[in-house]
This record gives sequence, C-alpha cells and structure tokens, in this order.
Amino acid sequence: MIHLIGFDLDDTLFNASELATQARIGGLKKIQECGLNFSLQEGINGLFDIVKEFGSNYTHHYDTLLERMKKDPVKYEITIPDFKIPKYVAAGIMGYHEVKVKNIKPFEDVLGCLVTLKKIGYPMILISDGRPIKQYEKLHRLKIEQFFTDIFISEEIGLQKPNPEYFKYCLNEMDVLPSEFMYVGDRMDHDIKPAKDIGINTVLIHRKGKYDPIISGKSYPYQADYEISSLEDLLPIVKSIS
Amino acid sequence: MIHLIGFDLDDTLFNASELATQARIGGLKKIQECGLNFSLQEGINGLFDIVKEFGSNYTHHYDTLLERMKKDPVKYEITIPDFKIPKYVAAGIMGYHEVKVKNIKPFEDVLGCLVTLKKIGYPMILISDGRPIKQYEKLHRLKIEQFFTDIFISEEIGLQKPNPEYFKYCLNEMDVLPSEFMYVGDRMDHDIKPAKDIGINTVLIHRKGKYDPIISGKSYPYQADYEISSLEDLLPIVKSIS
Repeated sequence: MIHLIGFDLDDTLFNASELATQARIGGLKKIQECGLNFSLQEGINGLFDIVKEFGSNYTHHYDTLLERMKKDPVKYEITIPDFKIPKYVAAGIMGYHEVKVKNIKPFEDVLGCLVTLKKIGYPMILISDGRPIKQYEKLHRLKIEQFFTDIFISEEIGLQKPNPEYFKYCLNEMDVLPSEFMYVGDRMDHDIKPAKDIGINTVLIHRKGKYDPIISGKSYPYQADYEISSLEDLLPIVKSIS
Repeated sequence: MIHLIGFDLDDTLFNASELATQARIGGLKKIQECGLNFSLQEGINGLFDIVKEFGSNYTHHYDTLLERMKKDPVKYEITIPDFKIPKYVAAGIMGYHEVKVKNIKPFEDVLGCLVTLKKIGYPMILISDGRPIKQYEKLHRLKIEQFFTDIFISEEIGLQKPNPEYFKYCLNEMDVLPSEFMYVGDRMDHDIKPAKDIGINTVLIHRKGKYDPIISGKSYPYQADYEISSLEDLLPIVKSIS
C-alpha cells in the first residue's frame, strides 16, 4: 500500500539540464550584445569546461571565463583584449537570468500527474539535492509548491543523495515506512540506488538527460522497480501496489 | 575651459534610493504572496533597520529579517512561526529583482543632457562608488553606457569617495587637469568636498534624496561651485567656463 509519493526535482519535474545550457548560452550572447566580440563556440566550450571543473553551484562561472578570455584572446578570437571584466560579468549574469526566468516550466506531463494524484488523495513530498534558496526559487517559478505536503532540500538538512540516511530522515519526518513510499527520480545512482537500499518502491523516469541510462549507455548492477518515460504512467503503478 | 565632464551614478543619474526602497518592499510583498503572513509595516521597519545595520551591499538582508521574524513572531504578527527560511528568502530576492528590473530608468533630464553634451563634443566619464558588477548591471539596464569615454567604479580601482586620490587617479587616467574637469554629484560630503579639495569644478545636483542638503537640513563649511536641480541647467554652466 502506497501512503506517500516522493519526487526528485531537477530533470524529473523540469528540464534543469536543458534550461541551464540555454541560460548559460544566453549569458554569453548578452556579453556579445554588450560589445565583447568573441567566438560563441569557443565561449560555450570555455564556459562548459568551467562548469565541469568548478561545479554548477560555483558562483563565478562568468568571471572565470572572462579571466581566461583576457589571458588567451587569440583562442577566443577577441580583438580588443583590454576589456573590463566586471562589465561583461554583469552582462553574462543578466543574460543568464533573463533566459532562466523566461523559460523555466515543468515537463508537460507534470501538472496533470500532480493534480490527479492530489485529487485522489495521495500525499506527495519533494526530495531534492541543492542549495535551499536556489531550489525554492525554482519551485516558486514552476508554481508547483502547493502540491507537496513537505519539501526536503539536502543542504537544509545536512544529508544528501546518494546517502540512504537522507531518505530515512524524510520518511521519519513524514512517519511513513519505506514500503509505503514510492520515489520517482531520473538518476540510477542518486535516486534509485539509495532508495532501493532501504526498501523504498522506486520509479526511474527516462527524461533523456545526461544521467538517463538510455543516453549515457551506462549499466548498473541494480534495477529500479519500475521504469517510465512519462508521469502519465505513474498512477497505474501506484494503484497496482495499493 | 572644460575638457571633460564627470558624473556620479546613484541618485545623480537615476533614483537609486527610491528604487531600492520600492524593490525592498516588493520583496516583502512577494514573501507574503508566497504564504507568510506578517505585518507589512513591521516587515518594512525590520528590513530597513537591517539595511542600516549591515549596509546596502550586505547579501543577506532577507535571511536576517526572516531569522528575526522567526525569533519574534509576535512583533511581526506571524501566525505560523514554524516556517522554512530559505523558501521565503527565495521569494524576497525574486520580488526585489522583479521590481528593480522593471522600474530602473534614468531621471527624466538625463538622456537629453547626455545626448546634447555628446553632440557638442564634450567627453564624459562616470565615477561611482560601489561593487563593479552591481554598478555595471545598473549601467546596462539604464542603457547609458555608450555616452561615457570611460567608467570608474571604486572597488575596481581600490580607491573610493570621499578620498580625493580617487578623483586624482581618474583625471590622471584621462590626462586632464582638475581645472579642465567638471564633476556632477548629489552628495556634499562624497562628491563635492573631495573634488573641490583638488581644484575640480563642482556641480551639486538637488535630487531630493536623503543626502540632499535641502532634505537633510545639514549645513557644510564649504560650497559647490554650482547648484542645479535639473541637468537641463548643466550646459549653460559648462559653456560659461569655456
């Protein structure tokens, strides 16, 4: 019997990877608009290298890129190498936010699923890794907060996926047993593995992002209990267990 | 003979004080929209106290306010004291930025003045205190950057008003003598005093902000060379010296 359904946020309820890519490119285009000529392709390569090196929560992506551009103007095809970095960092951040705010929206199957589950009476929670303020900002903009009985963000709690203790903590807070809980996520390693380890019913959703095993080609020595490509397929699974 | 005209930014070319006030209140209203009920007046008082205590460049205005709200729910008339701070910090920052982006614009007399001076052939520079990325973001949004031959932001240089060395540095960079330079600002202490001390032609503009001597009632043991209430009056002054 399922008494609670949990969802991951990024790349499960909205296309976080694609949005970040588009926003990062939006920042680069804004820098060009503000007057710095450079090869967009080299800029993209450079920025994405920095994201890989320093992580996506690093707060100086554009600063670091512009420092590298200034040091190696030939590589980036920059004709005026003596430029002011903060001028273009400001432009990059503006462009990034413009694209992000304008384009963030849930995957098309999300609202229908959340409305139906709520109507039937399944309580839902969100369990997401990340910085609380950033994750809550996404939730405000996605306008899906009201569907969740509770929201758990890793940095607020001090536990994070793939630590199974994180899932234990959430279930304890909700007073629900693992066998009564179903968790939907897009990552085999961070969502499915730790949840399975403590007896949670797991659903892997294929969103065709970089962690989707269909895209990465990676194989894992464990399986999700269910695999779906649309949240439209979630309700029959929940009902089948109930 | 005037060979160069310099402008302060905040409260000289746009209404920075009023915009910050409106944006801060916009953030508080967004927090209410997101579900936290509190007395707006107490919220405003609390937030403005924090700005006074920690300064306007402090990056945790809303965090600090929400911590104080949680500690003293009675004062702020909060009915549900057990709330998640990051949820409402995210809302506060969103509301702040929405108001800021939507409402930032130059004072009505600015574009006309900059267009005329540029047409006649007076080179202009900007000398502003503040954080480079924040100041450049304002310039991008105000769309007035193209009027200035150069832009000086204190934190980029490591000198700041009211240090007269800051003005000396800018003039040296521009290869212009103090007697050939005219500086327009709204603050007697930060703009007029240091500029006068090194022989710059000074213009105090009355913008009716909190530092305007007409508003503050403060008297100073020195005077600006000229006082105006609109940039429309600047050109005749420049011409009278030339």
